[in-house]
Amino acid sequence: MTVDKRRPGRRPGSADTRGEILAAARKVFGEKGFDKATVRGIAREANVDPALVHHYFETKEGMFAAAMRLPFSPENIVKTLVEGPREEVGERLVRMILQVTASPETREPLLALIRSAMTNEQAVTMVREFFTNALLFQVADRMQVPHLRIEAAFAQMFGIVMARYVIRLEPLASAGHDELVEVLAPTIQRYFTG
Amino acid sequence: MTVDKRRPGRRPGSADTRGEILAAARKVFGEKGFDKATVRGIAREANVDPALVHHYFETKEGMFAAAMRLPFSPENIVKTLVEGPREEVGERLVRMILQVTASPETREPLLALIRSAMTNEQAVTMVREFFTNALLFQVADRMQVPHLRIEAAFAQMFGIVMARYVIRLEPLASAGHDELVEVLAPTIQRYFTG
Repeated sequence: MTVDKRRPGRRPGSADTRGEILAAARKVFGEKGFDKATVRGIAREANVDPALVHHYFETKEGMFAAAMRLPFSPENIVKTLVEGPREEVGERLVRMILQVTASPETREPLLALIRSAMTNEQAVTMVREFFTNALLFQVADRMQVPHLRIEAAFAQMFGIVMARYVIRLEPLASAGHDELVEVLAPTIQRYFTG
Repeated sequence: MTVDKRRPGRRPGSADTRGEILAAARKVFGEKGFDKATVRGIAREANVDPALVHHYFETKEGMFAAAMRLPFSPENIVKTLVEGPREEVGERLVRMILQVTASPETREPLLALIRSAMTNEQAVTMVREFFTNALLFQVADRMQVPHLRIEAAFAQMFGIVMARYVIRLEPLASAGHDELVEVLAPTIQRYFTG
């Protein structure tokens, strides 16, 4: 008689394993927030080996972005902002946010996350911790910008996305990227270097 | 026999008339949006004479603010911004928004209105038309500021209120008014006069 030595319930990678890990990640991030969620805890919830989670997702940040279907990886955003010329970071940030939110396919998951944070206390914690620790403080600390100023820049661009795509204020909703860069980039630049 | 000459259903002002007008206003603003709602239509919905509506609420803007329990009258906001020194409008606007949103009693009705706009298409129209026509364009046209720049200023302060009171980012959520004025007033000032 052959003994199956796999631990019961622990399954190897299958066609759907990645999807099951992401479903488990959504549940664990929602319950624990971003900071307290662990790769180990998500693996347990998905009933797979932690090594398999690491195989699919290199970082907790990347797993969060994939689980929420966000149209960007936090690491790429941080890299784009930190690595270019400091005196052009305002324009770089404004163009990046405008591009990431330009099409409904990439914009809707981001808006869904924000909507959930508007109405659900668990989602607020998750969103706050993710934005703070995976994005804002990463950029602030690597570029030596005070946290309050990074958050003012975040608020400016968050407000623009809301006013443009949710409230749909005109002429803002129809304005082109160049026109918006002209108005907004000096604000962001001042928060970073002003 | 005495004949009651009042038209059936048309009631004179009573203790509860003001509340009934506001309930009717919420219904009509929600259904028609801010622009298409009329004092006459709200009076019909409340089953009172339009003169009575005018007696309680001088303007449609004031009725909207009262119906949504907003902690400000649009006319007062416009007046405060337009009438003070132009070179201090940035600080004036930032302090006003911080004061209006400082206590939960005044902040919650505003957040409720924004939450409804995040999730409900009828509410979006109402909110967009109200902000545009009762506030933003009033200020922009009287101060000769391009509409896009007024909306950038709106987006900055809208984002601050959301980041401070909904997402509760730190250190933004705990920052004092003076500290926030120092960071934000130059941004708003530049949109108005820059």
